Amino acid sequence: MNLYADRIASLRALMRARDWDAVVLTGSDPHGSEYPAERYKQIQWLTGFTGEAADLVVTADHAGLWTDTRYFIQANAQLAGTGVELHKTRVPEQVLIPEWLGAYFSGQRDPVIAIDGATAGCSFVEDILAAFGEPPTVVSSPDFINLLWHDRPGIPQTSVFTVDPGVPREEKIAMLRDFCEGRGAGGILLTSLDDIAWTLNVRASDIEYNPLVISYLLVTPDAVSWFVLKDSVEDPESERTFELLASEGIALEPYDSVDEALADCSGMLLCADPSSLNWQLKSVLDGSGVRLDCCKSPVALAKAVKNPVEIEGMRQAHVRDGVAMVRFLHWLERSVKADRAVSEWDASVRLREFRSEGDGYIGDSFETISAYGPGAALPHYVTPRDGAPMLEQSGLYLCDSGGQYLDGTTDITRTVPLGECTPLEREDYTAVLKGHIDLAMAVFPEGTPGCRIDALAREPLWRLQRNFGHGTGHGVGWFLGVHEGPQDVRQNLNPEPLRAGMIISDEPGIYREGMHGVRHENLLLCVDAGDNEFGRWLAFEPLTLCPFDLSAVDVDMLDAAETEWLDAYHQKVYDTLSPLLDEETARWLQGKCRKIANFA
Amino acid sequence: MNLYADRIASLRALMRARDWDAVVLTGSDPHGSEYPAERYKQIQWLTGFTGEAADLVVTADHAGLWTDTRYFIQANAQLAGTGVELHKTRVPEQVLIPEWLGAYFSGQRDPVIAIDGATAGCSFVEDILAAFGEPPTVVSSPDFINLLWHDRPGIPQTSVFTVDPGVPREEKIAMLRDFCEGRGAGGILLTSLDDIAWTLNVRASDIEYNPLVISYLLVTPDAVSWFVLKDSVEDPESERTFELLASEGIALEPYDSVDEALADCSGMLLCADPSSLNWQLKSVLDGSGVRLDCCKSPVALAKAVKNPVEIEGMRQAHVRDGVAMVRFLHWLERSVKADRAVSEWDASVRLREFRSEGDGYIGDSFETISAYGPGAALPHYVTPRDGAPMLEQSGLYLCDSGGQYLDGTTDITRTVPLGECTPLEREDYTAVLKGHIDLAMAVFPEGTPGCRIDALAREPLWRLQRNFGHGTGHGVGWFLGVHEGPQDVRQNLNPEPLRAGMIISDEPGIYREGMHGVRHENLLLCVDAGDNEFGRWLAFEPLTLCPFDLSAVDVDMLDAAETEWLDAYHQKVYDTLSPLLDEETARWLQGKCRKIANFA
Repeated sequence: MNLYADRIASLRALMRARDWDAVVLTGSDPHGSEYPAERYKQIQWLTGFTGEAADLVVTADHAGLWTDTRYFIQANAQLAGTGVELHKTRVPEQVLIPEWLGAYFSGQRDPVIAIDGATAGCSFVEDILAAFGEPPTVVSSPDFINLLWHDRPGIPQTSVFTVDPGVPREEKIAMLRDFCEGRGAGGILLTSLDDIAWTLNVRASDIEYNPLVISYLLVTPDAVSWFVLKDSVEDPESERTFELLASEGIALEPYDSVDEALADCSGMLLCADPSSLNWQLKSVLDGSGVRLDCCKSPVALAKAVKNPVEIEGMRQAHVRDGVAMVRFLHWLERSVKADRAVSEWDASVRLREFRSEGDGYIGDSFETISAYGPGAALPHYVTPRDGAPMLEQSGLYLCDSGGQYLDGTTDITRTVPLGECTPLEREDYTAVLKGHIDLAMAVFPEGTPGCRIDALAREPLWRLQRNFGHGTGHGVGWFLGVHEGPQDVRQNLNPEPLRAGMIISDEPGIYREGMHGVRHENLLLCVDAGDNEFGRWLAFEPLTLCPFDLSAVDVDMLDAAETEWLDAYHQKVYDTLSPLLDEETARWLQGKCRKIANFA
Repeated sequence: MNLYADRIASLRALMRARDWDAVVLTGSDPHGSEYPAERYKQIQWLTGFTGEAADLVVTADHAGLWTDTRYFIQANAQLAGTGVELHKTRVPEQVLIPEWLGAYFSGQRDPVIAIDGATAGCSFVEDILAAFGEPPTVVSSPDFINLLWHDRPGIPQTSVFTVDPGVPREEKIAMLRDFCEGRGAGGILLTSLDDIAWTLNVRASDIEYNPLVISYLLVTPDAVSWFVLKDSVEDPESERTFELLASEGIALEPYDSVDEALADCSGMLLCADPSSLNWQLKSVLDGSGVRLDCCKSPVALAKAVKNPVEIEGMRQAHVRDGVAMVRFLHWLERSVKADRAVSEWDASVRLREFRSEGDGYIGDSFETISAYGPGAALPHYVTPRDGAPMLEQSGLYLCDSGGQYLDGTTDITRTVPLGECTPLEREDYTAVLKGHIDLAMAVFPEGTPGCRIDALAREPLWRLQRNFGHGTGHGVGWFLGVHEGPQDVRQNLNPEPLRAGMIISDEPGIYREGMHGVRHENLLLCVDAGDNEFGRWLAFEPLTLCPFDLSAVDVDMLDAAETEWLDAYHQKVYDTLSPLLDEETARWLQGKCRKIANFA
């Protein structure tokens, strides 16, 4: 019998023993993290599905996994034989879990729905309750999966260290206190790991690709309590960090004592962001008479606008990342030309090696997408370790990767022609490049949200009646998550204005199933472009330093402004990186950075 | 003493006699019309301010007029000496009337605020009530202005006639009944004059520039009641119309009997659109136990998507409008070259004469903006009848005008170089033309709201760090209001998608106070551009037929696609209009429509 069908069966046995009519599990952790630690990959353990962003419902006669467009193909493959059915989200006809449960149990009196309240967001559970005429019984049983998953990993506990992004934690805590005062609140509870790491200027490696410390932070006018796993830690670095924070008056409390601490806040008006507050904690708050002030975390906007130290750090990190990328692309071209056997996986490993030689490299900022030909048509392709496709001397290879450095975070995509390209490949490659450049060149008035300039990146594609299904740009943290808000550049009408100091990715693409995929991505820094009688103006400065391969460009498709931008960008890339490269690589880069005119 | 100061003084006397602490008047009519009839220009009568969209508050010691950016200069001029102060709206620091009243009366117990409930929108009054800790007493005294305004005009009553836009009123009424059924409602009350004229396929001239009939329409499953002024009408056309509708089972009721009729709906769930429901009517509904289902009128979207008959009518109307515009521009050029004395006003009069020679011309669709030089820098400049500036043989003349025809409505702006232009005038003229063309050329996926392509029209301006303060495009009715929703193309994040069959204006501009103004406007029809693997596509077809004067164009600023669009557009203009013009004008048009290449 299929391993996962087996595990679902044992879950059903548990359900019968507990009189649970349904079990609902989310793919998140107690902090609403985008990437949960191994311990919280309960759905992967139960179903074998490895994609991000999945939720699971199991009843006596149905097991369903909800995930979005990015993962349909992968889910169909991985769920085969498990008995788990795929429920599609982000499609017009989608039926989300709350509605589905409401319909499934319609007519049945008082069904019992079991959840792991610690890993379920409070608004998600509220949506479930709201989907029923008379609300069902929701039983929260944190970590019940332990009864089935015997070798389940513990809560990670990696070395905690401090960083200096230019603004001391005292100032950030003072900002939080001002925020509370402004809302007449008695304190604020930070539950998002990004928010906590930013506020305390601490980092660790508790979550893959994310330099975060699993913890909670409670700030009141006269106290700061950090709920973190420290007892069993036996590394000097963590000890130093904890002592330093304690010496600054930050109380270190056991991670699992947050419930009692909150119970003591009875009567207090407490600020918390529902997007990262789990149901378990919300129940504790409600139960102990804390008045909840549900609001967007003030940290989100504050950390999105980078300060001068963070900006300079990002620039420096991108110089080292650019060196690694150029050495990688040079190696790749030589290897493929020399007919050496290189698989998608080999390439991703080699790229990590080049990055790891850079100062301050901590690790990758997300799982590298190394995809050749048809694989690149899946925007979130996962390169298989075994049996990955081999690179050949034709067509397009797409590589989307990034690094975590002590002074910044990077995220870059290059699409590389490995030899002859079809006319369609060249046209797609150039159209996407036009879109990338048109957004990078944008000048726009202060107060403009990203959704109002998203069309600048798409319009060259739209004119050819082509498009892509993902957003054009996301925020990026400073040595933090590679995806952060509140700003973005996408179809959804997010009203958050772009501000000087914000960073967004610029990554349009075109994907043709079974054929090829193209994506070009730089990180852009939003900068002040001065003001005049028409108001204040903003523009972008590319942080990423790496050439776009001109050999796949149909030069006639570029207009004068686009050609000028590309020439200037390549000049900057060469001037900045060549002094840091060996002679041969520098000469190779010079060729890659030549002017379009000399090329056409 | 200033005439208007005098009138405000007599209003204050009335307030003292009635124990009113404040009077609030809006610039609207009982139907929330954009352009009210003379009778409802109470604010103009009281203050002398002639701009649209103004609201007035008078207390014992303050008189304030609230209006937006478009009218600041005009308001400052017209309010001088009246004692009425300008309150600016659509500016960051704006304080709207409800907040202002709340602050003004803070501390005072139970102030009495008098309104003319018939001309005050229900949501506006609700906002006022909500702005107070404990709500003030709001006294609704319809038409109290009659006590001061003795020669106030009556409710207009012009000839009512029917139109045939391809869809019979039976079908439209059936659509309304389906809408009610879908919401489980017992009926729908239409209060917007646009909605009523569209539903019944009737028109009149009750409101300047708007072919509307002042009335209400109540549709239930078994009856249609039209509340309209008919008693004293003595024209055969109206009689024929009323008899025809009666013969189709539409009950004609007296306009002022709507209150009693609604009182009879006690207990019914009734659909009504709050954006055009006045406070007086809402009070009647609330008082008589009608349950109100406040919803967007289903007519708004239905009438925005034009049917084939309406589309063909719009095309034909634009051919005749184009002939009038070309004859006008030809006359204008000759007159100015010949040094004849032509004022802004003379030009607008001459343009109306040319239009009136076209078949089916009913009147203008709004007040013509005929502005030379600095006047054109005011987006809503009103050309003075007396002492209007004279046109000279240099610089830019801007003319924004439109016609109401039996088969369609037009709205066009051309900016005309009258001789030598400064480099800045040429640069502005060309940059705005690029923006106009880039939006007209747009191809975009089905489901895209106008706010997502607004930047296409602005980006050529933004790159030069120039911008304009108004929206880029508004919907246009079929022989109805020249401004209609629900779609638009502007900064505000209006989620309403553009649909095939919708019409929008494309009118970017640049305005330099004291120097010049540039605006180029065509009406665009949104059309289906087919579908492919990436989805369904939409594009625009220009309805307006009139050349853009090339003599002020800096050809080097246009890219290949823009040049191609302009050449093709001018070719279409010439081919369509020249057969309808006298030989001399046709020859002149040929010169205006020459290819850019032959020009540069």
